[in-house]
Amino acid sequence: MINRLCIIGVGLIGGSLARGLRQHKLCKTIVGTGRQKSSLEKARQLGVIDEYTTDPVEAVKHADVIVLATPLGAMAPLFLQLKHVIQPDTIITDVGSAKSSVVKAATQAFGSIPDNFVPGHPIAGTENSGVEASFAELFENRRVILTPLASTSPAAVSLVRKMWEAVGATVVEMSVEHHDAVLAATSHLPHVLAFTLVDALAGLDEKQEIFQYAAGGFRDFTRIASSDPVMWRDICLDNSAAILESIELFQRQLEQLKSAIRDQDGERIQTLFVNAKQARDRFLDQYDS
Amino acid sequence: MINRLCIIGVGLIGGSLARGLRQHKLCKTIVGTGRQKSSLEKARQLGVIDEYTTDPVEAVKHADVIVLATPLGAMAPLFLQLKHVIQPDTIITDVGSAKSSVVKAATQAFGSIPDNFVPGHPIAGTENSGVEASFAELFENRRVILTPLASTSPAAVSLVRKMWEAVGATVVEMSVEHHDAVLAATSHLPHVLAFTLVDALAGLDEKQEIFQYAAGGFRDFTRIASSDPVMWRDICLDNSAAILESIELFQRQLEQLKSAIRDQDGERIQTLFVNAKQARDRFLDQYDS
Repeated sequence: MINRLCIIGVGLIGGSLARGLRQHKLCKTIVGTGRQKSSLEKARQLGVIDEYTTDPVEAVKHADVIVLATPLGAMAPLFLQLKHVIQPDTIITDVGSAKSSVVKAATQAFGSIPDNFVPGHPIAGTENSGVEASFAELFENRRVILTPLASTSPAAVSLVRKMWEAVGATVVEMSVEHHDAVLAATSHLPHVLAFTLVDALAGLDEKQEIFQYAAGGFRDFTRIASSDPVMWRDICLDNSAAILESIELFQRQLEQLKSAIRDQDGERIQTLFVNAKQARDRFLDQYDS
Repeated sequence: MINRLCIIGVGLIGGSLARGLRQHKLCKTIVGTGRQKSSLEKARQLGVIDEYTTDPVEAVKHADVIVLATPLGAMAPLFLQLKHVIQPDTIITDVGSAKSSVVKAATQAFGSIPDNFVPGHPIAGTENSGVEASFAELFENRRVILTPLASTSPAAVSLVRKMWEAVGATVVEMSVEHHDAVLAATSHLPHVLAFTLVDALAGLDEKQEIFQYAAGGFRDFTRIASSDPVMWRDICLDNSAAILESIELFQRQLEQLKSAIRDQDGERIQTLFVNAKQARDRFLDQYDS
């Protein structure tokens, strides 16, 4: 399907996509690029990519499809670096967790958003990072959101859709704005809360004694606080408006619960918990099915 | 070791303790009691208990050891109901997630806290509840906190300690107040945050569309929001002061992060996330070892 695929940033997501496409024999050649030669060499040794160069200008040459799988903060400089090199018929997509900032960066670099650029976001991942953590099945039964613009080429959208479907994902399309609001609530907010909780507890207890009494609930709740800090810094910077709105929604709800606890109002507390449990159990039915 | 053990509330914790003690052949007879006959009958059928009655007064007769494994809210009425029935040499312990409220309820019912009453709390559990969810290995390599008072009989503490060690737990002792503060931070606060997050998102989205785009991180982060609402209502009511203090600590930290996001201060955001990731990774080393 793809003659020459270029993956910029061969980490958990980029590496897993490469593995999945390779497993299904959908790429002839996969070239990787990134800043760290050691990591690219490891990717080649693992058979995730065929070849690599640390020069993105070199890497994108003759590529049919380019996948940007770097942290969000690296995308704007890359667009600037590559704007004169990318062929007009090359299809570009990305995997960034925020979409309006990527669209803005591409628009600024290229003058207008390229017709063949399909902004995308696979809703998949683990708290681990790096190519060693990648695996071909990461996207199976997961959703990939594409946020094409009015000017985006339908053929480019179709190819990117097929690429993700080939590795087992279900592809949905929505607007850039809706994506950023939904992800702020369901992914960015939980990460912000988990990082904040662990940071607050670490500050409370310099000797870490407190963590001795944390159990499985704490481990699961804070798993996402082991995620890559640079990636999540970039998400907070790039999707700040929607994230701040989500935090404020959460803060209002927390104030409600606090006042119920302060008032010793068991009925209000229980109503909130029952509501949450039901919503969470419904989510689980959906997620696991 | 124990001739006749009475478990009041044969759910996840009470049932798992019974299974563990039975597996290690440490009880001659286990009698269960609780409000729901169907649940007690199921426990008997599963071989978790030998016999049962829905009358706690009947159940505690001739018991050497009584374990209160009900939600916290049920303990005060039970103490009142049982105060004239429990023999002075019977050892009593509980598994409540808050300790000062249990000590207070026992003191009020008995006039003073019985010497043979050892307040306890196993730091173990899952998001599931009921005897069907119980298993003998639940306490293996987990901590059990005992909070004996100055007046508590050392022999009673010793027996309760041995009981928990027999099912694989590590027993530590601390003051009632320290227990309640530590657990508010490491367990009660995460539960409060998880319930609040899911409740906030459910309110945002009546059609539940938003949950379609939630992924594994969300699933893990919110696992504890599937916990028993009544049990957690009682914990919020019973440990309210320490929980409110933890919530406020969290709120201050969240305000810090919010202002860093608002100021687009990548360095401050990253410092907080790195700090959290390091603390969480250290916790994990400890927990899994």
